[in-house]
Amino acid sequence: MTETGAPFAPRGDKRAVETGTRLSPKFDAAGLVTCVAADADTGDVVMVAHMNAEALARTLETGIAHYWSRSRQELWRKGETSGSLQHVVEARIDCDQDAVVLKVRVAGSGASCHLGYRSCFFRTIPVGAPPTPETELGFAEDAPRFDPDAVYGETPDE
Amino acid sequence: MTETGAPFAPRGDKRAVETGTRLSPKFDAAGLVTCVAADADTGDVVMVAHMNAEALARTLETGIAHYWSRSRQELWRKGETSGSLQHVVEARIDCDQDAVVLKVRVAGSGASCHLGYRSCFFRTIPVGAPPTPETELGFAEDAPRFDPDAVYGETPDE
Repeated sequence: MTETGAPFAPRGDKRAVETGTRLSPKFDAAGLVTCVAADADTGDVVMVAHMNAEALARTLETGIAHYWSRSRQELWRKGETSGSLQHVVEARIDCDQDAVVLKVRVAGSGASCHLGYRSCFFRTIPVGAPPTPETELGFAEDAPRFDPDAVYGETPDE
Repeated sequence: MTETGAPFAPRGDKRAVETGTRLSPKFDAAGLVTCVAADADTGDVVMVAHMNAEALARTLETGIAHYWSRSRQELWRKGETSGSLQHVVEARIDCDQDAVVLKVRVAGSGASCHLGYRSCFFRTIPVGAPPTPETELGFAEDAPRFDPDAVYGETPDE
């Protein structure tokens, strides 16, 4: 939260939230909204993560994506370790204001996935047949852009 | 779930889940994964929703996006009422397999938002200044593509 107190407008009535011009995010029971980061140039979704109020406020203020790490339970300036900072070109919010989309340009290696891939969504799922335990995923990226063991010491949690 | 039982592979060890070719979704405590639908042609994110195992299996089998409606607590064939079915061009899963991205072509009016907009993310949030209760959202779409009151009788929950 910012030093001046809650930086967002109160939720108000549903119609105002859904069609108005006030920023009134709906944080869930854990205090989080879902955030989708997409490549500003290609449109490709590169990751899905979560933001608490502070992460959202810092992202909007600085233009650098901040998230809330559920595994580490801490504010997370994405790319702090790897150098792959996400510069925010545009931010959007959805109708009921419980999800955010960021269009980003990724610094450094350009990888947003902790495994070194450009996108966390580097695998495809076959469509057109019922899934089975033998369903084979495909790969949409040839190779990671960095070696996570070299960057992080050991591969971190997602 | 399909008639033949659980259609997904067991989770197995973390490295296999994150880098292997088996489909082993991680459903949360409510039995859901997050799903992002993006326009297959423009790349724009059009909605964020949730899938249980049945919704994911039906989506993969039929090539038409199905979700789990948390507000109605039921399987939801998106576009059933409005005609805006989402035809899945590609499906992807992320590193830890708790989120899915669908690239879709939307039938009918082409609107995925229950308010008639093409995207639920039809509003922009200003970036580069700290958010305040007076922060003004902008509009990224000129107008809804349909009148939700006319299509649904009354505007439905998101």
